Amino acid sequence: MRIGILGGGQLSRMLALAGIPMGLDFCFYEPAEKACASGLGKVYQAAYEDEAMLLNFLNEIDYLTYENENIPVETLNFIETHQKIYPDKAVLQISQDRVLEKNMFRDLKIPTAAFYEVANRQDLLNALKENGYPALLKSRRGGYDGKGQILLTKPDDLSAVSEADCSNAILENYIAFDREFSLIAARSIKGDVRFYDLCENIHKGGILFRTINKQGDPYFYPARDYVDRVLKKFDYVGVMALEFFQHGEQIIANELAPRVHNTGHWTIEAAMSSQFENHLRAMLGYSLGRTDSMAYASMYNIIGQFPDKDLLTKYPELHLHDYQKQARARRKIGHVTCLASHSHAYHRALETLLLQTLES
Amino acid sequence: MRIGILGGGQLSRMLALAGIPMGLDFCFYEPAEKACASGLGKVYQAAYEDEAMLLNFLNEIDYLTYENENIPVETLNFIETHQKIYPDKAVLQISQDRVLEKNMFRDLKIPTAAFYEVANRQDLLNALKENGYPALLKSRRGGYDGKGQILLTKPDDLSAVSEADCSNAILENYIAFDREFSLIAARSIKGDVRFYDLCENIHKGGILFRTINKQGDPYFYPARDYVDRVLKKFDYVGVMALEFFQHGEQIIANELAPRVHNTGHWTIEAAMSSQFENHLRAMLGYSLGRTDSMAYASMYNIIGQFPDKDLLTKYPELHLHDYQKQARARRKIGHVTCLASHSHAYHRALETLLLQTLES
Repeated sequence: MRIGILGGGQLSRMLALAGIPMGLDFCFYEPAEKACASGLGKVYQAAYEDEAMLLNFLNEIDYLTYENENIPVETLNFIETHQKIYPDKAVLQISQDRVLEKNMFRDLKIPTAAFYEVANRQDLLNALKENGYPALLKSRRGGYDGKGQILLTKPDDLSAVSEADCSNAILENYIAFDREFSLIAARSIKGDVRFYDLCENIHKGGILFRTINKQGDPYFYPARDYVDRVLKKFDYVGVMALEFFQHGEQIIANELAPRVHNTGHWTIEAAMSSQFENHLRAMLGYSLGRTDSMAYASMYNIIGQFPDKDLLTKYPELHLHDYQKQARARRKIGHVTCLASHSHAYHRALETLLLQTLES
Repeated sequence: MRIGILGGGQLSRMLALAGIPMGLDFCFYEPAEKACASGLGKVYQAAYEDEAMLLNFLNEIDYLTYENENIPVETLNFIETHQKIYPDKAVLQISQDRVLEKNMFRDLKIPTAAFYEVANRQDLLNALKENGYPALLKSRRGGYDGKGQILLTKPDDLSAVSEADCSNAILENYIAFDREFSLIAARSIKGDVRFYDLCENIHKGGILFRTINKQGDPYFYPARDYVDRVLKKFDYVGVMALEFFQHGEQIIANELAPRVHNTGHWTIEAAMSSQFENHLRAMLGYSLGRTDSMAYASMYNIIGQFPDKDLLTKYPELHLHDYQKQARARRKIGHVTCLASHSHAYHRALETLLLQTLES
C-alpha cells in the first residue's frame, strides 16, 4: 500500500516514520528542493502546476493526504478528478482563508474573536472604528508562524500598513489571552473519533516554542465539543488540530489545521498511538489507535539552529528529533520531547535546565 | 552521522526507524538478497568474505554495530583492523558458541543448566550417562529459533542422532521450566546501565510467540545482578538480552544475545525509550534514555504468514509491524504490540481475542 503526501517537510517525514513500521510505502510531492522526507520514499520534485508530474505521482499511490494547507486550489481541483484527498478539499480550502474559517466557526456557534473582512484601507478604518485597539491585521491567505500579521495598538501604527497589507485581509480583535492551547482529534473513515489530551502551548515571536500535554484539563470538554462540530460538518477523515485562546473562563477558537500538527509531536513518545499513526489509520479504514497519554510530556521546537547536541543528548528523559534541514533563522529544524512518569516537580526542574540550554 | 549495521533484517530496520528521527543515516551490509531494511539506507549486498566491499562499507560509516551473531570470525578480524565494533567482538564470539557461552556463565557464577561438550558419539553417550534423560543436544554454533536442537528423552532417541549432530555440539540438561523470561539492558560507552522491565516469554516450536512486560516482577532483581556481571565483564556497549528459565524459585541463564532482541520489541511503544533508540544512544555516547514501562504491553510475533489484516487492524490497542518480508514457514515477518493503561483484566480479554485471530 502506497501513501502519497503533498509536501515533503518534517510532517511528511514523521508520517512516513509512523507508516513504514505498518508496512506502508510513501511517495512525496514537493515543489521545493531537498525535501526532508527524502530517504523515506520517492520524491517528486515539481511545481503544483505541473499536471503531467502530478498525474505520474497520482498513478503511483493508493491513498493521498497533505502536510500543509498551502496547495493551490487549481491543483486540488485537478487532483480531485483523479483521486480522493484526505482530509477533504472543502475543509482544506476553508482553512486556507481566515475569513472563510472564521465564518465557519460562527456558523457552527464556536466562539471566535470579533473579525472584519478587509479589502482596502477604508475597510480597515471602519473595522478599527467598530472594534477599537488593539487589533491584529492578518492576510487572509498564506500566513503561518506569525508571518503576514501586524499588531495595531494605536492609530499611529497605521502608517506601517501598506495597501497590500489591507487588500486581502482580515482584522481580528486582539485577545489578551491567559493561555493558548490546542486540541487534536482523529476521525476515521468509519466515523470513529478519538481525542488527545489538551495541548498547552507557548509561542515566541509567532512560532510555537513549547507544548505540554495537560491530562484532565477542565477546558478539554468544551473544546472537544467544538472540535467535534467541525469534524462532523466535514465528514472529516484524518487528524485535525484546533487552536484556542483561553481568556478568563472563556475559550475562543483561533485557527484550524486540517492535518497533523506541531502541537501534537509529543504524541510520538507519550501517547499510546501518535497523531501520525492515527492520521494513517484514519485514512486506511483501520480502527483508530488509543490516544491516552502515558506520561507527562513537554515538546520544544528547535528553531533556527541546533543548540549544542552534547547538551541535548545528556538528558535521559529527552528524545531528540533532527529533521536534517538546513539551519535558517525562524525555521523549525527539529524538536525535543521530554517525558516524565511520576513526579511533576522533577519534570519542571528538568524543563528549567532544558530551557537554559535552548535559550543559551 | 552514519551508522553501519552488519545485517539488513528486521532488527536493522527497527534500529534505523529509531535512529532516523535523531538525524542519523544508516548503511546496511547484508549477504542475502532483499534486505528488509532497504529503503531506510544504502544496502551493500555482498558476502561477508568480500573484503573490498567490506572496506567500501566501512569507509562510509562512523559507527558500526550488528543485528545478529552469525558473522564469520575472519570477517570480524578484518573489520577490527579498521573500525571499532559495538558490542565488542569478544562478547559476540562467545555468544556464537554455546560452550564458550556456558563457560562464561559458569565463570561469572551465573547458574546454568548442566552442560557437556560433545565432539563425537562417545562424548554424547558419556554425557548422557552423567546427566541422564531428558537432555537437549544442540549444535555449538549457528542455531536459532529452535534450529539445531534435538530433545533426547530416552535411549531410543539416539537412533535419530547423526554423526554430524554430535560432532560439534553441546549436551544440556533439559529444564522443565515453569516460566521463560528475558532481561534486556543497555550500557553506554560511559558505563551507564539501564534495565527494562522483565520480559515474560512464551515460545512455540522453538520460536518466540509472545512477550509481556512484567512490571515489579520479583525475579527482576536476581536476573539484573547476573546481567550486570556480563555487562561489566565485557565493558559492554549497546543493548544486551539474557534469556532465563525459572524453575520453582531458581533462575537459570539460558542464552545471551549481544544485540537488540525480539523480546524487547514491546519497548517501541510501551517504554520511555525503545531498545533500538538506546542501542544507538549507547554507541554514540549519549545518555541512555529512560527505560520505564509506560503501559502493560504484550507483543506477538507474526510467523510464517500474516493473518487477515482486516482483523488485526480493528483493535485500537494494537500496533502493527509488518517487516515487508516474503511469507515463508517459520519465518518472523512481523509483530503486533498491544498496550493497556489501567485495566489488566481488559488487557487479558483483548489478548484472548487476539490469540484467536493469530491462531485461526
